[in-house]
Formats: sequence, C-alpha cells, structure tokens
Amino acid sequence: MIGKLDELTLADAAVRDGLKWTQVRPGVIPAWVADMDFPPPEAVREAVARRVDTDLGYPNWLDDSVGPLAEAFAERMETRYGFQPDPGLVRTFSELNQILQIVLHLMTKPGDGVLVHTPTYNAFLNTLRAMDRRPVPMELTPDGETWHFELPSDIGATKVLLLVNPHNPTGHCFTRAELSSLAEFAERHDMIVISDEIHADLAFSPDAHIPFGTLLPDRTITLTSASKAFNMAGVRCAVAHLGHPAVRAAFDAQPLDLYGTPSVLGVDATIAAWRHGDAWLAEVLAILDRNRKLIAERMPAHVRYQPPAATYLAWLDFGIPDAADYLESGAGVRLNPGPLFGAPDGFARLNFGTSGPILEEMLTRITAALPTP
Amino acid sequence: MIGKLDELTLADAAVRDGLKWTQVRPGVIPAWVADMDFPPPEAVREAVARRVDTDLGYPNWLDDSVGPLAEAFAERMETRYGFQPDPGLVRTFSELNQILQIVLHLMTKPGDGVLVHTPTYNAFLNTLRAMDRRPVPMELTPDGETWHFELPSDIGATKVLLLVNPHNPTGHCFTRAELSSLAEFAERHDMIVISDEIHADLAFSPDAHIPFGTLLPDRTITLTSASKAFNMAGVRCAVAHLGHPAVRAAFDAQPLDLYGTPSVLGVDATIAAWRHGDAWLAEVLAILDRNRKLIAERMPAHVRYQPPAATYLAWLDFGIPDAADYLESGAGVRLNPGPLFGAPDGFARLNFGTSGPILEEMLTRITAALPTP
Repeated sequence: MIGKLDELTLADAAVRDGLKWTQVRPGVIPAWVADMDFPPPEAVREAVARRVDTDLGYPNWLDDSVGPLAEAFAERMETRYGFQPDPGLVRTFSELNQILQIVLHLMTKPGDGVLVHTPTYNAFLNTLRAMDRRPVPMELTPDGETWHFELPSDIGATKVLLLVNPHNPTGHCFTRAELSSLAEFAERHDMIVISDEIHADLAFSPDAHIPFGTLLPDRTITLTSASKAFNMAGVRCAVAHLGHPAVRAAFDAQPLDLYGTPSVLGVDATIAAWRHGDAWLAEVLAILDRNRKLIAERMPAHVRYQPPAATYLAWLDFGIPDAADYLESGAGVRLNPGPLFGAPDGFARLNFGTSGPILEEMLTRITAALPTP
Repeated sequence: MIGKLDELTLADAAVRDGLKWTQVRPGVIPAWVADMDFPPPEAVREAVARRVDTDLGYPNWLDDSVGPLAEAFAERMETRYGFQPDPGLVRTFSELNQILQIVLHLMTKPGDGVLVHTPTYNAFLNTLRAMDRRPVPMELTPDGETWHFELPSDIGATKVLLLVNPHNPTGHCFTRAELSSLAEFAERHDMIVISDEIHADLAFSPDAHIPFGTLLPDRTITLTSASKAFNMAGVRCAVAHLGHPAVRAAFDAQPLDLYGTPSVLGVDATIAAWRHGDAWLAEVLAILDRNRKLIAERMPAHVRYQPPAATYLAWLDFGIPDAADYLESGAGVRLNPGPLFGAPDGFARLNFGTSGPILEEMLTRITAALPTP
C-alpha cells in the first residue's frame, strides 16, 4: 500500500514554503509544527482548479440552511464512525481553535475552569491562558502500552470538558470505557463537552476512533476539519456540530457573519478530501503506521516512547534538560518542546508525518546526538 | 483595450455554478447579486495552483505581526490612491460585512444610531436590522449628473458613520468636498468612521476614488477586499485598516483567533490580483465603462438613470410597481428589487458586470417588456 509518497526526499521537500520548512535554520530537518510533508490528494487539487475555472463568486449554497460541507461531514461521520450528526446543527468556521474560543467566549467567563487532559495541545493551552480560563488537569500517565488518567474529585466552577480525541500530543485513542466515564462525569456535573476529533481519520487499526457525540449527543460540540488527515491546515475550513442546545442558541443569537465564513476554495477542497481522498489517506496511514514503529525500533531504551494509537505525533521523554533545544542544535532536527504542552522540558513532540527516507535521516541524527545514559 | 472577456456568451456563462446563475429560473438572465460573469485574472489561477502544488500547510507568515496581505494592501493603496496605511494596523477577515458586525458589536449597543446614506447596500442594511442598530439616513438624491445629500441636524446617540464609497447601489464616487464635510461632521461628533471602499478599483475616469483614511486617519476603519474588482467573492479574504485607536484596542483585546482567519488560498489569490491583475482589470473597466453608457443609450427616457461613477451596478427608477418582479417575469431578467436597499419598489439594481452580447440581450428584453408611459 506504501507507494510514491514514501519516496519523498529532503530535496523534494524543499518545494514546501510554509511555516514548517521555512522557520528552521538551513540544514535543520523540521519535525515540529503539525503539518505533514506530503502533497494533498489529487482530488483536492482538482477540486480547487475546478472552482477557479467555473465560478469564484458567491456559492450556490450561500443561503441554504444546510450546506454541502455539513452534508459531507454528516455522511463521513456515519460511514466511518456510525455517528449520525444532524447536518442542520453544523456550523462552519476557519479552524478548531477559533471554535473553542467562540464557545468559551459565549458560555464561560474568566476564571472558570476547563477540564482537560495533560499534556495539552499547545494552541488550546494558549487559548485557555489568553482567555484566563483555568485548566483543570487530568494527567495522562503511561500505563503499559496505553495511558491512564483519573477523574478529578473537585472541579469548582468548571462547566466545560475540553476533550482532544485522538489526543495531541500523546496520540492516545480514548477507549469506550474511558469515554463512558467522561460522559457520566460530564452528565453529573452538567458540563458542555467540546470534543476536538480532528485526528479521527489518523487512527491505526486495531485502535479506532469513537465520536463523543455517539455517547452524549445533547452535550457535545464536535469539532473537526480535513486539515490534519489531508494535510491542508492553511485552507482554513472547519465544522462544529452544535449538539448542545444552549451553545447552539447562544451561537445562533450572534449576528450571522460575525465569526466569518470559510472560502469556497476551502469548502470544495474539504469536500473533495472527504469524498475522494481515502485512497490517498490509506497510503499515508500505511506510511505513518510504519513510521511510528520505526521510531520505537530506533530510539534508545532510555527514551520513553509509546507508539501513538493515532496521529503523526510521537510524544517522547528524552530525560535530558531542554530536549528540543538540545536536539535542534546537536542533531539538526527541530521538535516541539514539551513545555509548550505544559510538560517538563525533557519531553518533546516529534512530527513523523513524512517519508521513510526523511524519518530515517532524522532518527539517525537524533540517536547519534543523544548522550549515553 | 476590450478583448476576449467581452466575447462571453450566454452559453459560456452556463459554466458558472454560483448563486447568481443557479438561483434563477431557466431562461432568465441574472443581473442581481454582485458577481461579474468574467473568469478571474490568470494570475489568480496561477497563484492558487502554485499554493496547492507547494504547501497547503500553515503559511510561513503565520506568526508575523505584518503579513504579506497587509503589505500588498498598503502598497496598492499608496500606488493607486496616495493613501499610506500602516501595515501594522491591518487585520484580516473573511469579508466586509463580518468586519462591520465586529466593529458594531465591540463599539456600539442595540438602539445606537449609524449614519448611513440611503439607498443602502442591502447586506449592511440587513446587519443594522439584525443587530438592532438604528439607521440615521442621509438620502442621496439625483442632482444633474451626480448625487446630493444633506448632513442631518440631529443624530442622537450615533457614534458611527458607515460610509460606502464608491457607493452601492448608486455608484456615486464621493467628491473631496463631500468627504471633507463628512470628515468635519465626524470629527465634531466624535464618530468612528467605517469606510467600505471595496469598489475603489472600479471607478471610471475622470471620477476617482479618494480613501477616507487620507482625510481622517485616526477615526477611520478602512475596509476592502479584492473580491469585487477581481470577481472572487467566494474566496473570502478581506482587510481592515484599524486607524481608530479605540477600535484597534477593542479588537486586539479579543482572543487572537476568535473571528477566524482567511485561507492561504484566498490570501494568495488576493495578493496575485492586487499585484498582477491590473491588465485584466483595465480590460474589465473598459467593458464596464462601455456598458454603463450603453444602458443610458438604450433605456427609455422615462426610466431615471445616471451612469454610475464606479461599480458595475446601475441604479434604475423604472417608475412602475414592483419593477424587479415585473422584469423577471415579463423580460426574463432578474434585477435586485429596490426595497432590499430601503428604496421604493419602482427602483431596481441592475448588475452590468458582463459582456456586451449578454448586456445587449438583457437590454433588448427589458426595453421590449417595459410599458409605454
């Protein structure tokens, strides 16, 4: 199943002119910000070209209460995950962090708690800090080949559970038992659940993604986008399924265009990826599955690492001070430092969304640079 | 200067699948929603294709305080209009109505007045109604070959002047004398000026656009986008120059991503249009200039019409009840009804952003269908 995408070389990657490849010193291989190195599915390229060649004006669905993006989202959720969202409850946005900020803005106030697993996706952690919402932590700790967390005993003024499933940066796919305990807890404490499921399509068999909306439909705001699985974060097109009636009412009480609308190019690219990108996705998943195992094979035993159940992100405990800085200067590979995710500086997140040859080069450099314990 | 764009036929236009062409009955020619019928500049097509072929991930300017869109906007304003905006005061959005809603949301409250010319751009009128802001009218009345308006004597709790210049739907380019009187009024009443200048590039010589930011830089929020002049409203990419310090402070106090961000595809398309689209624009302007005069030649004398100084919109007083409905059923041409803009139903707005052959057909149909007075 692994094909030409896996042949990408460092020279091929030089075409990439986004944040990931341009914000590193010459010679440094970027394994930081969460973009993969693969070109998007051909269907995305075709959909964008078709849109430019036909009509870049107001789209024919502009005034529809349910647009084609909501339909494509609902179709994909049902086909892949048995989740049956109501397309009428879908609203469209730029990206997931925007939606998180809107829900927190409308439904909570400064000082309120937000129940969240730690380590925590850096952009969300930054949002909680910027908006003065207090993280109420549930620490994910290694537990055999998986992760464990405890529900807190005292949550104070905490009305929101912010779930990131599959989890970033650990790559954990929450199990049905874990999700059920979270659902029972959210129900008991009358919480709004904001469920970021952007990595759902990047779960490795036999692990499988379970949408939180299947457990607690009337409390859950499901967030997703094609941007991660199909590698097009710059396209800025995301959906929220507003299952929670009070959140939906608060959002719909705002002026219709206050929070903006995605580009027709982003909408068409997203629909193309969801409807016609799965062969591309299967090839990428095969590469990523091989990659996550390759890291385990090549990393020295004193580096703590559990291959993620989903995502192209490896969460590594190098056990050395300022691990990311050390590896950028010593190995010429840029990882994201653990402290960005609220973790100690011995941790770092490695982005393995790349080809075999590039990952091999990264691992060779990292293992050569690591101090012997 | 008129070239192949003017050869567009009704059959060619059938490729267009947006709102304008799909929301009319078969056989009806659409002259309603403000999209033109021309394909975008080749530079836009190339920029979008290049973005898909290089990197659809997070753009390299993501964390820059001044991005390339702000630079391109500032460059164009200075080159074409002698306006020197500070790129550091530019913020990016989906579209202009979004920005209007944000500024009203942050700086005013329900019941507050908004000083605005009548007739009024329909989307803005809808925003004022939806947000319960009270339009304080300045009526534009025909005055020889131009338009006249009076400043109001009593404005009550009115903190905002919403200027649409060039004006939609009349196509009036406000003169320096008019703008000076508005500036003096805004200064005297301590107002925020929101200046929609989206049609600036569509002024016909010798009329010329004068940015309000050159008159009252510290009070003016200048709004624009490439979407009108370069015919890509679906791309959703707009800029606001936040010259007013209190508006800027209020906006910057919001969470960074709350109002979303435009797609990299929209940003690249916009920059390409602004930097490399002017040959295309010159051809379009030549067509539109011919078209605005053709309407005057062909329309019967009892229809009141002044060729617009800018835009591809003809504001027509047909002097018959429900003029737009009458023409859609009787002539097979769909115009926007006057009441959408707060005007009597004898008025209608005709979109002449199309080729000579298509406009000829529309005018033949309309003149044949009109009752003799």
